Amino acid sequence: MSPRIVEVRRDILKKNDLLARELRDGFAAAGVFVASMVSSPGAGKTALLEETLRRLRPSRRVAALVGDLATERDAERLARAGAPVRQISTGTVCHLDAEMIKGALDGWTLDDLDMLFIENVGNLVCPASYDLGEDLRVVLMSVTEGEDKPLKYPTIFNTADVAIITKIDMAGPARFDAGAARHNIREVRPGIEILELSTFTGDGFDAWLQLIASRADAR
Amino acid sequence: MSPRIVEVRRDILKKNDLLARELRDGFAAAGVFVASMVSSPGAGKTALLEETLRRLRPSRRVAALVGDLATERDAERLARAGAPVRQISTGTVCHLDAEMIKGALDGWTLDDLDMLFIENVGNLVCPASYDLGEDLRVVLMSVTEGEDKPLKYPTIFNTADVAIITKIDMAGPARFDAGAARHNIREVRPGIEILELSTFTGDGFDAWLQLIASRADAR
Repeated sequence: MSPRIVEVRRDILKKNDLLARELRDGFAAAGVFVASMVSSPGAGKTALLEETLRRLRPSRRVAALVGDLATERDAERLARAGAPVRQISTGTVCHLDAEMIKGALDGWTLDDLDMLFIENVGNLVCPASYDLGEDLRVVLMSVTEGEDKPLKYPTIFNTADVAIITKIDMAGPARFDAGAARHNIREVRPGIEILELSTFTGDGFDAWLQLIASRADAR
Repeated sequence: MSPRIVEVRRDILKKNDLLARELRDGFAAAGVFVASMVSSPGAGKTALLEETLRRLRPSRRVAALVGDLATERDAERLARAGAPVRQISTGTVCHLDAEMIKGALDGWTLDDLDMLFIENVGNLVCPASYDLGEDLRVVLMSVTEGEDKPLKYPTIFNTADVAIITKIDMAGPARFDAGAARHNIREVRPGIEILELSTFTGDGFDAWLQLIASRADAR
């Protein structure tokens, strides 16, 4: 990139960080716990989120924002869980930013929420640099993507607080090496908590819900 | 994005298009057929390319350029196929561009090649806008990513010449609906040729090699 581009990009990121801090302060003041999800396209963010909203909703006031280039499919899927959901269409932009989050929250009363989930655009590169004001950033990686992905996309794993290995019901057919995957995740992000689950079979899902609840209660 | 960013981005794309045309002319003059591959991370680009190089090498002079953010893993894997391979490290940039291709070709004599394969960074958004001077752009999508991906990432499918559905050995466990996937691909890219294959089992691989050979011979 030319020096001019780098400079423009630095300004954008600085502006984003300031706005993200403002969002974070607002979430804290309203007592809303915010978790964001990043992953490659097709790692299972929407399925995980749909089931998470469904299972949390009896006891928590939950809502979601979902980012997508073009369609409203994810919002439609998530609305089936019965929680308030808003779609953010990014056009050709490969990530969400704090300004998009702020705009999407317009008209919502944060005091009416306990938890907000943000599903980023499916991308292992672009979302890494953009703070969205979240309390917890979760990176998902499915067993079919290959164990080397943390090494190939280190920044996104390095900026995450929790890693979830998804689709473990397909670990056998995918010849997935869980030890290698865990080793690679912790090589770029030492000490990170790693969960394994299948939204389809429900295996490992309780541990994920417990993690969310305990992180929300601890803040 | 601000008007200033949009303007800078337009200048970059225009510069890229001019350089891509120069590359394309150079490839044509040297008689080199160039195919590029784009997909989500983990769709199987490197595995497909490794096997493609291995099977083409007895009869064609093949080489490959592979783009990655950080590691040289793909180049190491591909070098096992015995073909000349160069890695392009993009740092934090989420796609290859024509200038990177030109730089990576430095010192190679194009007249010594019949076919050049370019593996882009794993990303369904960023690579779409960057012409690399290739003759054929191939988009890969694995059976585990979900049949809706063409609708969610239309631009990358729309700029491709051929779509390959990979990992068909996992279609059963992934509960993959081939009809829906094909319908969605053709909704954003009417008439596009669609192949299905498994690099692991070899199913469908011959049709892919035939396609490459016939496209290369037809140019």
